[in-house]
Amino acid sequence: MLTLAIDTATKVCSVALCDNEKIIGEYSIDAGMTHSDGLLPQIMQMLERSKVNKDELELLAVSTGPGSFTGLRIGVATMEALAYSLEIPLIGVSTLQALAYNLSLTGFRLIPLLDAQKGNFYAAAYEWEDNILNKKANVAVWSADEVINYAKSSASKVLLLGECLKLSEKIAVNNIGIVPENLRLPKASSVALLGVHNFLKGDRETAFLTNLEYIRRSEAEELWEKRCQKS
Amino acid sequence: MLTLAIDTATKVCSVALCDNEKIIGEYSIDAGMTHSDGLLPQIMQMLERSKVNKDELELLAVSTGPGSFTGLRIGVATMEALAYSLEIPLIGVSTLQALAYNLSLTGFRLIPLLDAQKGNFYAAAYEWEDNILNKKANVAVWSADEVINYAKSSASKVLLLGECLKLSEKIAVNNIGIVPENLRLPKASSVALLGVHNFLKGDRETAFLTNLEYIRRSEAEELWEKRCQKS
Repeated sequence: MLTLAIDTATKVCSVALCDNEKIIGEYSIDAGMTHSDGLLPQIMQMLERSKVNKDELELLAVSTGPGSFTGLRIGVATMEALAYSLEIPLIGVSTLQALAYNLSLTGFRLIPLLDAQKGNFYAAAYEWEDNILNKKANVAVWSADEVINYAKSSASKVLLLGECLKLSEKIAVNNIGIVPENLRLPKASSVALLGVHNFLKGDRETAFLTNLEYIRRSEAEELWEKRCQKS
Repeated sequence: MLTLAIDTATKVCSVALCDNEKIIGEYSIDAGMTHSDGLLPQIMQMLERSKVNKDELELLAVSTGPGSFTGLRIGVATMEALAYSLEIPLIGVSTLQALAYNLSLTGFRLIPLLDAQKGNFYAAAYEWEDNILNKKANVAVWSADEVINYAKSSASKVLLLGECLKLSEKIAVNNIGIVPENLRLPKASSVALLGVHNFLKGDRETAFLTNLEYIRRSEAEELWEKRCQKS
């Protein structure tokens, strides 16, 4: 199933082309927030280089958060437009769960983290068991201490993923592991694999018109509410 | 140290831009042997997308085999030309050792394999111990049975990498592991990391004018010798 996938939930702009589990192409850039001018050219260049015509695509997959508000909006808008014009399904997947697809090895408690600002993290926990990814902690907003305490209490060897470098000092003191740098940040090939997996098991929910997984409201919304309460 | 790296030892055409351990960009295509018309455009597109000018590059790293004769020649020729014109050093690294950089986690005996034709494999074995990659078996040509027997005799958990899918049946029967698909084939970011590592520890040997690590001679050379002996 020829799948085009993207991840724009963080500073990384990642696109990938997969045929079921085979990765035909992957193109990731981590050079600052340049998704608005770079995402579509990256997709076009990768398809051309892979000698795949856009009309051959069968499925689109997009990472729907948690993550950067603007990054997610650009990614989903682009993929919705492609799904509409190419008339193929678009499936949305969790950014945190996709991160756990970066290292599909048994024996590790994987804790993907995304920066939720103000010292907090969007977090979840997963473990690969018999080639199935099992959720060990639901997606939530955790403080740095909550992340560290959860990691320390785990029976399996813990590996953090995602935007975890803000915790570097605490990680070092507590002897908590991080996945190797080439697996730390979002990869569109993981979004593709998870998207195909969900689609084939019958998940037909698309990213269209659904709420993205922002978890928390935007800073602007919170400020607006405070202002309204005061007046 | 801003490093441009490539790997063209297999069907995968992979380019990456790294600043020491940070991966700024990576662009890999596995769509048939299209290195001759695709390698330089891939490099150019990735640098432009990363907003890095070619004059800012400080080091070049290239995978020097074992691997595909023509793929390696195209890769090294391109990188030699860049090193000459940009006047920056070019360092060559082992394709097998670079594959072991795809999964820098302790606890695994990593066996990277590259197809040596006629049922044989270029193989080596490595293990990450205290963040250092230690060689456990020297680069050699192994038969399929030699690979399987070595894997079965290892005390650590074995993971095969590279062009190992030809062994699928034997792997399944003997319960031998393969790294996840997103880590199986060469990645230019691994070439970059290994290249920078070797360069910083004082290895100034460049790929210029050195013999590539073909291990065996080409089919053409062997046939030529046979023909000469007959006549």
